[in-house]
Amino acid sequence: MKTFLRCGTGGLSFFGLAVVLTAGPWQSLFNGRDLTGWRVVNGTAPYAVADGAIVGTTVRGTPNSFLAADREFGDFIFECEVRHEGGPANSGIQIRSLVRPDYREGRLHGYQVELDPSARAWTGGIYDEARRGWLYPPSLNPRALTAYEPGRWNHVRVEAIGPVIRTWINGIPVAHLIDDVTPAGLLALQVHSVDNKPGQEGRRILWRNLRIQTTDLVPSPPDGIFIRNTGVNTVSPEEQARGWRLLWDGRTARGWRGADGRPFPAAGWSLADGVLTVLGRDGGDIVTEEEFSAFELQLEFQLTEGANSGIKYFVSGRLGLEYQLLDDERHPDATKGAAGNRTLASLYDLIPREPLPEGTGIEPKIGEWQHARLVVRPDGSVEHWLNGVNVVSYRRGSPLFQALVARSKFAENPGFGLAARGPILLQDHQSVVRFRSIKIRPLTE
Amino acid sequence: MKTFLRCGTGGLSFFGLAVVLTAGPWQSLFNGRDLTGWRVVNGTAPYAVADGAIVGTTVRGTPNSFLAADREFGDFIFECEVRHEGGPANSGIQIRSLVRPDYREGRLHGYQVELDPSARAWTGGIYDEARRGWLYPPSLNPRALTAYEPGRWNHVRVEAIGPVIRTWINGIPVAHLIDDVTPAGLLALQVHSVDNKPGQEGRRILWRNLRIQTTDLVPSPPDGIFIRNTGVNTVSPEEQARGWRLLWDGRTARGWRGADGRPFPAAGWSLADGVLTVLGRDGGDIVTEEEFSAFELQLEFQLTEGANSGIKYFVSGRLGLEYQLLDDERHPDATKGAAGNRTLASLYDLIPREPLPEGTGIEPKIGEWQHARLVVRPDGSVEHWLNGVNVVSYRRGSPLFQALVARSKFAENPGFGLAARGPILLQDHQSVVRFRSIKIRPLTE
Repeated sequence: MKTFLRCGTGGLSFFGLAVVLTAGPWQSLFNGRDLTGWRVVNGTAPYAVADGAIVGTTVRGTPNSFLAADREFGDFIFECEVRHEGGPANSGIQIRSLVRPDYREGRLHGYQVELDPSARAWTGGIYDEARRGWLYPPSLNPRALTAYEPGRWNHVRVEAIGPVIRTWINGIPVAHLIDDVTPAGLLALQVHSVDNKPGQEGRRILWRNLRIQTTDLVPSPPDGIFIRNTGVNTVSPEEQARGWRLLWDGRTARGWRGADGRPFPAAGWSLADGVLTVLGRDGGDIVTEEEFSAFELQLEFQLTEGANSGIKYFVSGRLGLEYQLLDDERHPDATKGAAGNRTLASLYDLIPREPLPEGTGIEPKIGEWQHARLVVRPDGSVEHWLNGVNVVSYRRGSPLFQALVARSKFAENPGFGLAARGPILLQDHQSVVRFRSIKIRPLTE
Repeated sequence: MKTFLRCGTGGLSFFGLAVVLTAGPWQSLFNGRDLTGWRVVNGTAPYAVADGAIVGTTVRGTPNSFLAADREFGDFIFECEVRHEGGPANSGIQIRSLVRPDYREGRLHGYQVELDPSARAWTGGIYDEARRGWLYPPSLNPRALTAYEPGRWNHVRVEAIGPVIRTWINGIPVAHLIDDVTPAGLLALQVHSVDNKPGQEGRRILWRNLRIQTTDLVPSPPDGIFIRNTGVNTVSPEEQARGWRLLWDGRTARGWRGADGRPFPAAGWSLADGVLTVLGRDGGDIVTEEEFSAFELQLEFQLTEGANSGIKYFVSGRLGLEYQLLDDERHPDATKGAAGNRTLASLYDLIPREPLPEGTGIEPKIGEWQHARLVVRPDGSVEHWLNGVNVVSYRRGSPLFQALVARSKFAENPGFGLAARGPILLQDHQSVVRFRSIKIRPLTE
């Protein structure tokens, strides 16, 4: 039998020779009998108490409804159990959320831990309700997609400590977000609006055993899932621990030069306000001085109307495998090549990107920051990710890859894309495109 | 506390209301102290006893060595524990194996449960030593590839009951073979020959807790792994339970007709001696009357020198996705197309097959029976398998598939390969090619 001493102030207690980290006390947020301590903000979906659970019920034609605890929380660890009854109904748990008269007439907005019993199964992801949309779609973490089982009670854990927000469903880590937009706010239970179609109303979302810690918080150990850090040109300690570092320092041209062995372009590229901008005025491509073999790269990019650029890897001269950057709607190259293999996030002229899931709002938007991720594993497999979705997968040098190259514009370039290592290139294609938060880490077996 | 009654004769015992199947008694094959009951057949590698285990040691320049139990076994369930010490050394457990003066001068031959600590990790597969080579390569069952851990004791289970031979490593099912070539024979422990290279000798394979049941055998429940049945034009009860049936009855043209709506060819195809042969004399392609959407197909084929044929699926007219059949060495089409995408087992003119693992002897041979397998899943993913190895994977209709088609000889065939369902076609390409054991089963979600 083990006994733990609880230390109310420090989180550290000495028990014999062992140092045991203990967290502060759990506070219950629900008395199991009535909605004392809760109030409805926005919407008209009914919330009731039955069998020791808070029950939200979908109503046709109502907007999103929220039942909020009557206190605000900043840093906390929250746990509860959730189940769905009567059919799938989108829902969520708002954290650090705000209601302001001057923001959309008092619309509740902010971080939502998604509860998604649909086939998409994005439960545990982090959505920015009525603000920025998806911040951490669970598509980033495929193992998490089977964590939630709508028809039974599911355990939900949320850690919000400083800018780090992490979630677990039934003990499986789902999201790891670093974002400092809102440090504190409401905790609220969502019943999502449903269409006026028959059959969607009367579905129930049940919450029980809602409890929270707000002192002596002990974060869970690292879990290895992808960390999405919205901080600009920063590498968090958690990212550093995984080997991430800035590939562009956010200010200078250090570590970069012009392609084809030239110096960094004297004009045509701007490095200001934490943004690396290709101005589309014949500055020429730029490449990293360092070469990479197996790596994970991420960056944010912003396209302007009609823009064309690209992120090339395993570059030799100016030639390389290319994560295409393109305004698909306005640039004519989108309809050239074969079957869309020159569209945004495609492997240029070789593999078209998979479609993004519909209805998620994560489709790239011109003039807004988008997230690109590129994974090149030691076994040769490569992935292109766009806004958290894996849209291209292939294996460098595989028979399939070779067959694609043999019928591409690179057919006459022997060994195309097969170099053991090479620099990363950002392309000047006579368009204005912005980059920031360019990070890389080596990958080993 | 549970008590089981052992019933020595029937395998069935009544205990209250429950029916409990019990197997016959375990007999130990090793006394833990010396090699009483064992004898060396073939080879000169030393076998000794240490710490309650039989220890075989590799010796440079010796042939394969075998330590055999001094009884023969027919139907049995065998279990033991195995570990490797001092580095990887190929080994195996022979079952139902034979030593005959008139077969390769007394060379031990027959079924071997592979012990393979190399990176290939084919432990638990079934190899036909000094006879037919690989019968069940564990590549057929990728989940099994991580089952064996060379540096620790591993549990091995073998069930050989009638023609059914099944293996488990550490409780994970590895192989499920149906083969009736040898019903009984020796059980023996192999130490594989090693090269004359330094460093390969002195490696040890340890066996302990060797035990066997020979009466009242109770087979393990079905496990869902692929069943390789070498019986000609037969479907075993285990295969029937998984939905397999003959697509060709082994005798008549029932269920088949000529392509393009013609009757079954009056000439050009032979249906004799359990073999369906295209004679290469303008009989024309044949197709199934039935159409298929998601399915698993397997067959054995035999190429003649320079032969060209194919298995087409989702056929419309005579056009369809094609599992190419070709004598790669002699037919000129092997070097046409792009990067080998017209070679044997490739998706014709679209995706070249992956190379087969080297040194396994499973490379296809002209004039011998080879095993083809085609999996079309309800989600659209497709696999071509050749002799137990997955050599082509793609998703029908994916952006990548569409890009391949757009630059292939099918570029001008709208909707190529995208039909919701279609017949299976065997191609007459003016070559002699033989088929048998053509089986299919529908696949559902």
